[in-house]
Amino acid sequence: MRFLRRTIIAVILIAVIVQIVFLPPIILVPLVLLWIFMASREFTALMQKLGVHLPALLLPLANLIFPVSLMVDFAFRGATPDSIHLSELMLPCAVVCLYGIFARPPRAPQLGYAVFGIIYLSFLPAHLIMIRYLPGIRPMVVLFPLLATWVNDTGAYGFGRWLGRHKLTPISPNKTWEGFIAGVIVTVAFSVIYLRRLMPSVGLVPSAVLGLVLGVIAQAGDLVESIFKREAGVKDSSSALSEHGGFLDRADSLLFTLPAFYYFFTFLVSR
Amino acid sequence: MRFLRRTIIAVILIAVIVQIVFLPPIILVPLVLLWIFMASREFTALMQKLGVHLPALLLPLANLIFPVSLMVDFAFRGATPDSIHLSELMLPCAVVCLYGIFARPPRAPQLGYAVFGIIYLSFLPAHLIMIRYLPGIRPMVVLFPLLATWVNDTGAYGFGRWLGRHKLTPISPNKTWEGFIAGVIVTVAFSVIYLRRLMPSVGLVPSAVLGLVLGVIAQAGDLVESIFKREAGVKDSSSALSEHGGFLDRADSLLFTLPAFYYFFTFLVSR
Repeated sequence: MRFLRRTIIAVILIAVIVQIVFLPPIILVPLVLLWIFMASREFTALMQKLGVHLPALLLPLANLIFPVSLMVDFAFRGATPDSIHLSELMLPCAVVCLYGIFARPPRAPQLGYAVFGIIYLSFLPAHLIMIRYLPGIRPMVVLFPLLATWVNDTGAYGFGRWLGRHKLTPISPNKTWEGFIAGVIVTVAFSVIYLRRLMPSVGLVPSAVLGLVLGVIAQAGDLVESIFKREAGVKDSSSALSEHGGFLDRADSLLFTLPAFYYFFTFLVSR
Repeated sequence: MRFLRRTIIAVILIAVIVQIVFLPPIILVPLVLLWIFMASREFTALMQKLGVHLPALLLPLANLIFPVSLMVDFAFRGATPDSIHLSELMLPCAVVCLYGIFARPPRAPQLGYAVFGIIYLSFLPAHLIMIRYLPGIRPMVVLFPLLATWVNDTGAYGFGRWLGRHKLTPISPNKTWEGFIAGVIVTVAFSVIYLRRLMPSVGLVPSAVLGLVLGVIAQAGDLVESIFKREAGVKDSSSALSEHGGFLDRADSLLFTLPAFYYFFTFLVSR
């Protein structure tokens, strides 16, 4: 029953996201903004459990500044992702510094974690918008890092349950080395098969390397979120998505794989 | 005696930096790298006092990655600052995340503060390299944000001691509103006089606005460092520069004014 609900929710989520990727790029932006807002709320609640009290809406709102600026640049000023204005990333940092200076009492952890929160939950997810607005990119290519991350997640989970013997790390006690390695292998296989059909010009070795990078980094992203959750003493960042946990849980790997894919892909294309 | 030593050290520091700005851009890089290394060590020591134990060389070395990559791009690949590779900023973040995952025990504050440390002491100071490598920029223009910051600092200190009555903030008990306002006013005056002679095309209002922005943000930078020092219970980040405190103390305002100048200036020029 639990498994069934989990699967149904996963299918619905994936179906919605796949649909949206095929629509005009601007449609994707509200989805990313909504996700950033919800995940930033969950992150603020996690911080609260760690004894770091941030105003409830500071990060949820400040983290929208960078992706909204990107959208304005791309959709209305005809800019391309290779010429983004880093100054727009400075704006949320300035907001957080002002808060740090005027907060009573002013405290270092608030400031440090809030800047971390901007990088983690605004700069990283904004790479999905940057990918979608790459000149001439096809929706099937935009889907690739998303699908690769889900393939990795499913592979690591399935093979880990089946073959897992050796614990990977105390951060996340259910993870095993067997699951980790299997996740990376299925991601490499997926990457090679998918990219060979979609972009034959990329070549076998770069496709395999990209799969390897995404497979490893997806699980690193999962572990980084786990460090915060473990310290806060919670299993999921929220129960907003039922068995899937919160918005942050559902995208912890994507936070790392989307930038990795963006830089790897733009490097490949620029050669 | 104390005042004399302070003045002599200031004159030597300023003379060295002014000289270096007039030499080829590549000469500036080792100075920035040295400063980043020393300031990151001081920041690590401050964190230690806050109970956040980072490996002594993690930030000092990770924080060199981004400016070194910038130098390679600018000096050897002919890139310009408007096309910097953000992927290079991801590298130190990846190093820190790997450390976060493998540290025993893995802890959230280490990870959060280390990412903050990368933005604060690698990304921000790297803007001096970006300014120096702007196509066609004159050394006198590179000097402008440095001089404006020092003018602001001196103005705020001098007028604050003379006229200061109303405390600005509990973060930094010696600062007064009178000093703050006087610092901003002298910075606006300096900006207008300097830029009118150097770049008459900039116009009076943009020059005054730039002075206002730099004056306010320089003191914000000072206060942000003070939040950390105050919480750590120290007055200076180190005593490396005698009466001037540590490397971090000597440049806390520049960390904020250099990026502000960079984005303001590139915006003005791009119009």
